[in-house]
Amino acid sequence: MAKTIFRKEASSSESFARTGLLQTSHGSVETPIFMPVGTQATVKTMTPEEIETCGAQIILSNTYHLYMRPGSELVEKAGGLHQFMNWKKPILTDSGGFQVFSLGHLNKITEEGVTFQSHIDGSRHFISPEKAVEIQNQLGSDIMMVFDECIPYPSDYQYVLQSVDRTTRWAKRCLDAHRNTDKQHLFAIIQGGMYSELRKRSADALLEMDFPGYGIGGLSVGEPKETMYEVLNDLMPNMPENKPRYLMGVGSPDCLIHGVLRGVDMFDCVLPTRIARNGTAMTSEGPVIIKNAKHFDSWEPLDANCQCYCCRNYSRAYLRHLFKANEILGLRLMTIHNITFLLDLMEKMRQGIREDRLLSFCKDFYRAYYKQELQFNLNP
Amino acid sequence: MAKTIFRKEASSSESFARTGLLQTSHGSVETPIFMPVGTQATVKTMTPEEIETCGAQIILSNTYHLYMRPGSELVEKAGGLHQFMNWKKPILTDSGGFQVFSLGHLNKITEEGVTFQSHIDGSRHFISPEKAVEIQNQLGSDIMMVFDECIPYPSDYQYVLQSVDRTTRWAKRCLDAHRNTDKQHLFAIIQGGMYSELRKRSADALLEMDFPGYGIGGLSVGEPKETMYEVLNDLMPNMPENKPRYLMGVGSPDCLIHGVLRGVDMFDCVLPTRIARNGTAMTSEGPVIIKNAKHFDSWEPLDANCQCYCCRNYSRAYLRHLFKANEILGLRLMTIHNITFLLDLMEKMRQGIREDRLLSFCKDFYRAYYKQELQFNLNP
Repeated sequence: MAKTIFRKEASSSESFARTGLLQTSHGSVETPIFMPVGTQATVKTMTPEEIETCGAQIILSNTYHLYMRPGSELVEKAGGLHQFMNWKKPILTDSGGFQVFSLGHLNKITEEGVTFQSHIDGSRHFISPEKAVEIQNQLGSDIMMVFDECIPYPSDYQYVLQSVDRTTRWAKRCLDAHRNTDKQHLFAIIQGGMYSELRKRSADALLEMDFPGYGIGGLSVGEPKETMYEVLNDLMPNMPENKPRYLMGVGSPDCLIHGVLRGVDMFDCVLPTRIARNGTAMTSEGPVIIKNAKHFDSWEPLDANCQCYCCRNYSRAYLRHLFKANEILGLRLMTIHNITFLLDLMEKMRQGIREDRLLSFCKDFYRAYYKQELQFNLNP
Repeated sequence: MAKTIFRKEASSSESFARTGLLQTSHGSVETPIFMPVGTQATVKTMTPEEIETCGAQIILSNTYHLYMRPGSELVEKAGGLHQFMNWKKPILTDSGGFQVFSLGHLNKITEEGVTFQSHIDGSRHFISPEKAVEIQNQLGSDIMMVFDECIPYPSDYQYVLQSVDRTTRWAKRCLDAHRNTDKQHLFAIIQGGMYSELRKRSADALLEMDFPGYGIGGLSVGEPKETMYEVLNDLMPNMPENKPRYLMGVGSPDCLIHGVLRGVDMFDCVLPTRIARNGTAMTSEGPVIIKNAKHFDSWEPLDANCQCYCCRNYSRAYLRHLFKANEILGLRLMTIHNITFLLDLMEKMRQGIREDRLLSFCKDFYRAYYKQELQFNLNP
């Protein structure tokens, strides 16, 4: 039986939201949580200390990228990813599945695994479930993910059915290949496209195998957000209470809110850091595009309600100047702000759950950010 | 008579080196000092706190760039450059002269001033000595520089003679135009190309006008280093003891050492930050090119003798990975290291002067860094 690493704490009477505590070898994580993404063993532009100051409890790093460069063997020689990048808190690694299917030039999928070419140098590689686990064992992440097939959206029912069953068989092989069960926890990934029946089929089979946690994959892949919420509506009530639920690749404020309301515990996305580098700040009054002319002589901070390093020290006028002048400090300051903003949103949702006033918090936030009303029904 | 803002403290018996204290409205500066360059109101990749942690006492910012973007009027509205960029220590601004002659598309030099086109958008501008001072008054830097003509190397004697005299007349106009003499100190710039006689002519005329400090311009413009040292050999003994001497645009370790030995008090250069971003670290054993294959699995810090944030926390293998993967954190860490390294060199030279063992320190440093012997004679 899988080690229990998650304990539910508070829950919300108006939704499926809950707070919880996730235990890892590098400390515990309060959920629901957003994980900033450090694809290449660095959260872009940031030092580990800065990420921590933004409130990050756990980050995600990408197995595919690290396997390609600098290689998981080098990271292992460094003493693992934490040591390599100087990050002392928990790390979750994905399995590389998503990148193999989206970034690499895909050659062939067989029952055995996937053959593909590197997006860096075109070199040919083969990743099997066993290999994905071996790489993650070398990286030494606290939470590992099983190797899954990431299907395109839309995909037809027959293909998804076949793929779900293969992902289930791969999950079993990952479980069997895992060599460091004491310190690293392997999560399964529920697939099934947008088919409620196949999501259930995937979940049932994987729950049967008793993983310590469950990812929900194959969402936020181009489908309407409503479709994603419906998949969650169907799926979440079947999930066991004592296992963390991780909605993969999701990080816009609306999706975080809708996910938390449906009982999701963990999220990750490049969104806050990527749009920061493109000059968009998330603020309590909605997005701010810093290059806009109106900020030329604005002496306001990005967000008067934010206590981050950027908002405490710099004006919009200065930030706009940095972006117009292509200065790296601009990318850093916006990244600090956006990560702080999202982690602050998660903290406020946790508080809202603990004090059982989550829905009203979410409604207020939504109105201020999106200038429209949040639509959510407990029994859709 | 100009305010006295500089006091000589210790001096070296084996050289012309001296320590001193430079007073500004934003605190005092121990000399000899190197000033990191923050061209566009940011030392590239760095926060002000990081620059300070590297040991910086004063930074340089570029008038030409700030005038072009975001405009000196905006910076004035921000409350000045310190406020705009959140740097609380002294700032020196150049006059824009060097950039007008090197970066802009130069149209015409007249007695009145210089017409040129912006390197950003091709827009046409006119800068006179009065305008250069007005811009620097708007920026609110602690130390301002006069507007000078920066001639190419080599230039013939007649041209340099004419140019020196014009630069002298411009210096007088700058002095007359300066509106904030209480808080901002205007330094003259000695020109004269590589002609000892013209350097003396320039120095004599400018010393007569009694500026609070003196830049030495028109060096490090492509001439052999020996030529630069000879110019300094000739010039420095004529400089008054109670005025700071600032060798403009110089920042390689050998030039810093040779400059300090000849009595220079201040230096600036983009070198340490620029080569950092290109992947070259300055270390106590010489330059390290971080992308070199030999660092692939090196778990050593850049410099075992360095206490900077980079050297305390990251391996060469990790830095190499960041550079190979084009990650901004790599640029930041190398910048932190290189600035720390040069400022540490300056601090060690100051100590060497105070304890009158400067020459032996410089010889040891030189041998370790350049693998050759330092050549220096007190009476060349």
